[in-house]
Amino acid sequence: MKIVIDAMGSDSAPAVEIEGAIMAVEEFGYDLVLVGDERPVNEELAKRGFSGSKISVIHAPEKIGMQEPAALSVRRKRRSSIVVGMELLKRDEADGFVSAGNTGAVVCAATLSLRLLPGIERPGIAITVPTLTGTTVIIDVGANIDPKPIHLFQYGIMADAYSKYILHKTNPSIGLLNVGEEESKGTNFIKEAHTLLSESKLNFIGNIEGRDIYAGSADIVLCDGFVGNVILKISESVIDTIVKLLKQEIKASILATLGAAMAASAFGELKKKMDYSEYGGAPLLGVDGRCIISHGSSNPKAIKNAIKVAAEFKTQEVNKHIVEELESY
Amino acid sequence: MKIVIDAMGSDSAPAVEIEGAIMAVEEFGYDLVLVGDERPVNEELAKRGFSGSKISVIHAPEKIGMQEPAALSVRRKRRSSIVVGMELLKRDEADGFVSAGNTGAVVCAATLSLRLLPGIERPGIAITVPTLTGTTVIIDVGANIDPKPIHLFQYGIMADAYSKYILHKTNPSIGLLNVGEEESKGTNFIKEAHTLLSESKLNFIGNIEGRDIYAGSADIVLCDGFVGNVILKISESVIDTIVKLLKQEIKASILATLGAAMAASAFGELKKKMDYSEYGGAPLLGVDGRCIISHGSSNPKAIKNAIKVAAEFKTQEVNKHIVEELESY
Repeated sequence: MKIVIDAMGSDSAPAVEIEGAIMAVEEFGYDLVLVGDERPVNEELAKRGFSGSKISVIHAPEKIGMQEPAALSVRRKRRSSIVVGMELLKRDEADGFVSAGNTGAVVCAATLSLRLLPGIERPGIAITVPTLTGTTVIIDVGANIDPKPIHLFQYGIMADAYSKYILHKTNPSIGLLNVGEEESKGTNFIKEAHTLLSESKLNFIGNIEGRDIYAGSADIVLCDGFVGNVILKISESVIDTIVKLLKQEIKASILATLGAAMAASAFGELKKKMDYSEYGGAPLLGVDGRCIISHGSSNPKAIKNAIKVAAEFKTQEVNKHIVEELESY
Repeated sequence: MKIVIDAMGSDSAPAVEIEGAIMAVEEFGYDLVLVGDERPVNEELAKRGFSGSKISVIHAPEKIGMQEPAALSVRRKRRSSIVVGMELLKRDEADGFVSAGNTGAVVCAATLSLRLLPGIERPGIAITVPTLTGTTVIIDVGANIDPKPIHLFQYGIMADAYSKYILHKTNPSIGLLNVGEEESKGTNFIKEAHTLLSESKLNFIGNIEGRDIYAGSADIVLCDGFVGNVILKISESVIDTIVKLLKQEIKASILATLGAAMAASAFGELKKKMDYSEYGGAPLLGVDGRCIISHGSSNPKAIKNAIKVAAEFKTQEVNKHIVEELESY
C-alpha cells in the first residue's frame, strides 16, 4: 500500500502532514510518499528523528495557495505538490492521495489527471458530519456547484458505496435536501432528481429538510455543491459563534464563569466531534483514483485518519463497487 | 394604528397570540384585531380578564395547518384566519398583519390579496440573525426558491430600506452569498446578480461565504430562497444538536455536570439571542402591505415584537422608501 501525501497543503504545512505521516507509518505500516518542497520536508522529518524506507520524499517546489484560482493554478503550476502528487497516481505509482490544500485545485487536478470512473459524469465531495444518532454523509459540498439531476442520482450511488464499504453501514438511507418534505416541493431540478432517485434501487427515503441533517434522519444527504458548501461553512461558523457568544454571556455571571471552566473539557470533546477531519477527511468520489481532501486546519491525527481512509478505499475496492452498481442500471 | 393578528398560527395558538396581543395593547396602545375561531379566542381573552375596545375579534372558522400545501389551501380555505386577515389589509381596514402560521400560505395569500409593490417582481422573506458583531438580515429564506438575478438585486433594495428604517443601520453593507469571495466564483445566476449589484447604488461589498454570515461580515446577506431556507433550518438545528451533544459529553464527568448546571442561565440567554422571533419575526418584503411572519414556536413576547415591527413598517413608511429607491433606477 502506497499513499501520496501533499506535504504543502494544510495551514501548518509541512509539520502537520509529516507528523500525521509518521503516525500512519507507525500505526499501519503503509509506504508513504511526501510530495513538496524537499528542504523543509526533510528538515521536519529529521527534527522528528525519522529515518527509514517507509517514507520517501518527492520534490515539488511550487505551492498552490488556498485562495488561488483552481483551474488556472493547476494548468500553470505543473511542479506544485498537488499536480506532482496526482501524476504519481495517474502513472499507477501510488494507491491514493491525501491533501489538506486548495480543494478546488485538488478536484481540478484529479479530474484532469485521473479522469472520471466509467459512467460517472461529475465528481462530488462527500463529508461526514456527526449527528444526534451517529454520522451522516453530505454530498456534494463544492466539487460541482451547478449539477444536473442525474449527477445527484450518481452521488447517491457513490455515497451508498462509500457508506457501505468504508463507514460499514448496512443499507444506508438516502435523503434529498429540499425546502419541505412533500414530493411537490422544490425547484424543477430537485423534482427531477427526486424522480430519478425514487425509480432507483437505492434506499431513498424522500425529501428531507435542513433541520433533519443533524437530527440524523438520513445516512446520506444529497444536495448541489453550492448548497453543500454553504451548509459546511455555516455549520462550522455556527459552532464558533455559539462558543464565542456563550463566552460573552458567561462573563456576565461569576457562577456561570466557574461553571463554564468546569464544562470546558466537554466543549473540547464536542468541538472534536464536530470537526469533520476527525473522520479522515472528505473523499472526492467519482474520479478514477482515491483522493481524500482534508481540512486546511487539520491536525496530525486528521492527516493520519485521511491516509487510512485512502488505503481503505483501495482494499475495499470502493470504485469497483461504484462502477458495478452504475452498470446495473 | 390597527394591526391584524392571525390567532390560529403558532404551535400554541391561540394562547400565545392572545397573550402577545394583550402585551402589545398594554405597552403600545395599538388597536388589534384577532382573526380566528371566535370561541377559543374569546375564552382565552376572558381567561386573562381582558375586556375593552382595543382588541376586537373577527371570526374565521378555518385553519391552514403547517404542513398543508400553501397555494391550494389559500384558494380553498377562504374562511381561514390567514385569508380573512389578509382581506382586511386589502380593504384598507388595517395597517399590518402578523402570523406565526404556515409561511407558504402567508406568502401566497399576501401576494394574491395585496399584490406586489410597483416594480417589484417577487416577494422575499427577511430574517434577522445574531452575529458576533450585532445582527444580520438574510433575504430570501423561502418565499422564492428559484429566483432570477434581478430578484436578488431587488432584495438588496428592500433589505436596505428595512435595515435603515426599522433596524436603524446607517448605510448597511450588502454581501452576496457565494462559494468563494472572488468575483469569478459561483454559478451564472450568482455572477449575473453580482454584476447587477456592483452597478447599483447599494453598499455592495461583494461575495461572502457561509462562514462570514455569523461572523457579521455584512449587514445584509442576499441568497436564493432555497439556500436561505436551508441556512435557516440548519442554523436552528446545529444549535439544538450542540446543546444535546454537550449534554451527552457533560454527563461523562461530574465536574462538567456541575459546571453545566452553573452555566445553564448563559445557555438560556444564548438560545434567546439565536431565536429570530426575538427580533419581531421576519417581514415579507415586496408586497403592497405589511406582513410579519413569526416562528411557529413563538412565545408571547415574540408576537408582541412582531406586532411592534408591523406598526413601525407603517410609521416609517418602509414600502414608500422601497418604491422610491426602485424608481430611481
